[in-house]
Amino acid sequence: MSELVKTSNGQEDVGLKGGDLLSMVLETKPLALADNDDRVKPIKLLILDVDGVLTDGAITYTNTGDESKTFSAKDGLGIVAAQKAGLTVAVITGRKSDIVRRRMTELGVSHLYMGVGAKAEVLKKLLQKLGLQYKEIAYIGDDLNDLAIMQVVGLAMAPADAVLEVQECAHKMLTHAGGHGAVREGIEYILKKQGRWAQVLLQYKRERQTKGQ
Amino acid sequence: MSELVKTSNGQEDVGLKGGDLLSMVLETKPLALADNDDRVKPIKLLILDVDGVLTDGAITYTNTGDESKTFSAKDGLGIVAAQKAGLTVAVITGRKSDIVRRRMTELGVSHLYMGVGAKAEVLKKLLQKLGLQYKEIAYIGDDLNDLAIMQVVGLAMAPADAVLEVQECAHKMLTHAGGHGAVREGIEYILKKQGRWAQVLLQYKRERQTKGQ
Amino acid sequence: MSELVKTSNGQEDVGLKGGDLLSMVLETKPLALADNDDRVKPIKLLILDVDGVLTDGAITYTNTGDESKTFSAKDGLGIVAAQKAGLTVAVITGRKSDIVRRRMTELGVSHLYMGVGAKAEVLKKLLQKLGLQYKEIAYIGDDLNDLAIMQVVGLAMAPADAVLEVQECAHKMLTHAGGHGAVREGIEYILKKQGRWAQVLLQYKRERQTKGQ
Amino acid sequence: MSELVKTSNGQEDVGLKGGDLLSMVLETKPLALADNDDRVKPIKLLILDVDGVLTDGAITYTNTGDESKTFSAKDGLGIVAAQKAGLTVAVITGRKSDIVRRRMTELGVSHLYMGVGAKAEVLKKLLQKLGLQYKEIAYIGDDLNDLAIMQVVGLAMAPADAVLEVQECAHKMLTHAGGHGAVREGIEYILKKQGRWAQVLLQYKRERQTKGQ
Repeated sequence: MSELVKTSNGQEDVGLKGGDLLSMVLETKPLALADNDDRVKPIKLLILDVDGVLTDGAITYTNTGDESKTFSAKDGLGIVAAQKAGLTVAVITGRKSDIVRRRMTELGVSHLYMGVGAKAEVLKKLLQKLGLQYKEIAYIGDDLNDLAIMQVVGLAMAPADAVLEVQECAHKMLTHAGGHGAVREGIEYILKKQGRWAQVLLQYKRERQTKGQ
Repeated sequence: MSELVKTSNGQEDVGLKGGDLLSMVLETKPLALADNDDRVKPIKLLILDVDGVLTDGAITYTNTGDESKTFSAKDGLGIVAAQKAGLTVAVITGRKSDIVRRRMTELGVSHLYMGVGAKAEVLKKLLQKLGLQYKEIAYIGDDLNDLAIMQVVGLAMAPADAVLEVQECAHKMLTHAGGHGAVREGIEYILKKQGRWAQVLLQYKRERQTKGQ
Repeated sequence: MSELVKTSNGQEDVGLKGGDLLSMVLETKPLALADNDDRVKPIKLLILDVDGVLTDGAITYTNTGDESKTFSAKDGLGIVAAQKAGLTVAVITGRKSDIVRRRMTELGVSHLYMGVGAKAEVLKKLLQKLGLQYKEIAYIGDDLNDLAIMQVVGLAMAPADAVLEVQECAHKMLTHAGGHGAVREGIEYILKKQGRWAQVLLQYKRERQTKGQ
Repeated sequence: MSELVKTSNGQEDVGLKGGDLLSMVLETKPLALADNDDRVKPIKLLILDVDGVLTDGAITYTNTGDESKTFSAKDGLGIVAAQKAGLTVAVITGRKSDIVRRRMTELGVSHLYMGVGAKAEVLKKLLQKLGLQYKEIAYIGDDLNDLAIMQVVGLAMAPADAVLEVQECAHKMLTHAGGHGAVREGIEYILKKQGRWAQVLLQYKRERQTKGQ
């Protein structure tokens, strides 16, 4: 069968079938992918959720009352590189944990808001403090308690294993799951579109030239 | 080809083809999927197994005698949301663990039965205590020691990685594995069919409106 | 092209092509799959390796000097059920660990040989002690240090993620990976072929009848 | 359609189509796969990164300030076997950890450089100390801070889940991910091409002959 479909004004659309048109009509995401270039340009602050974003959502308890969380080394390198490149990184999370404080300190992230019930409220105060606007904020979230904040930021991103409602709300779906590189991917997405990734790469490759003298 | 099929009494069934009829005849589960609507409606209590359901079945021991278990943050949000929506949640497990007590306390689950040999027996007592009937109970289990209880409850569900005999006994197979969202999926399945999920979603989205005033 | 191939004696083989014949000639496994029924019948003792068989091969150390290992709850139920059904279970492992001792005690496994360099040597002594023959032993192993013992036992099995050389040596490849149900699968394989699995299942289902009186 | 393609000089290439030729032209790796035989022959020292190579990149912290790392038992056997076969093994890592020291001591790896900022610099000193040349060094790395060192060694390898820039820099991509057998695969790749793997295998199989006397 031909891939050509006659549209109402008589023009031919190549490769676009009825099903595609239907799915475009049903598209519920706030902005189509094509608009993401505009969304990324003004981004100055990247805010991260913890469970399900910086981790794979695993909550590990021990019999003696201890608790552990697992982060990704690749996310860590991305967070350090992002800050060197001038992108501020912050964390807003519903749970409270010394583990998160320790990991974020290690990575040089000083904007850390834990035990937060209403994330959008905390964001509002953070913007006033930093003198930033909503359109300058990117956020990565994975579950229902991220929906409120994802609806107001300039660029909302979600790990591949985010819940359905968050996926529908995200401007940009990431191909990596939480705790398995989603944060790194989100950082590279921003820095590449802002033209700052090449400089990051060069700094890592430059080690050789310096040392090889 | 048309999706319409004439049935023996002359009525039209929309979207039901020969292959579907065959698979219904070969269906070995106690009740066909079409009957699950009836099963879900009266559910008031969801009972969860622990190892392989709330966790991925991992039993982790340390050299110094400690033990750990890993839960899913997404399951946790689902359990909190279920209780807010009026669905009671309970845990019945064969093993005994302070870890489970701590996590369930955190999630507001007070009906906790651990170190249980005969689960169906415990269920019987719980029903008397709460004044509930078997048809008002949903259960999620994954292994042979869940078979007895799954045969008597109104709605038996199983994670994607449950053992074969449990899969054959379940009214509803979940697409997520234990510890990786099976509980969340089971909760959403019940609340959506009972028409209570939209209210849950609204409460999470509402944060924005309250704070954005 | 026809699926029929004329053999040298003029008979027709249905569905057997040249490539299949070649692969049969190159077959390096001691006995073809068809002979496994004979191998399973006399099995009285199942010996398990630990790392990569009872676990997924993860060696976890902590900064304070502790160590952890992760076992499968489904394997655990299988080991308990096997012993109830009359199949003795033993563990022979190259590493030494209090963790393994604790888990095996919990599961009622008393034949525990740890810190073993030459596994085949230990097996020889165990057989003398228990009055058993090599053909009455099944073994599950995953790496090169299991090769010597796998070559002498009646039934050698390997997890899906065993190294290539072990896969080639195994009489029976398991579809589950180490630590993710390989042991359970091996136990069910033996008990089903020996006609003892139905009794195991009945005992688990019977709970309902006893309690439902 | 025929698999035969006429080349400009009139010769027939079997099974090589236009798309293959294009991908060969676009090939960005320093040397084509065919040259790896030459690269492997002189290798005397294998250097390993830790996070993302010897582990899957998981950084696990506990609430009480402890930390854990998970290694692969199969990698461990490979490292022991490599050293017995005469291939020296070393570790150079950006992070500092007692965990790594403990695991490497257990495996007999004495060349251990931790907390290293500039890896290529450390390599230079190590080569002077051991009297080795760059072409005698193999390295397995997974992230940007491995790029400098990977550009100067004789054989650069990368786990299947290395970041894109590292994949493009590697002479040999491994099919296993970090912490899940990448190191074992790299070791076998070297020893097999150097004709030393058969001897390793024989030593493991020989246990049976010695003990079976």
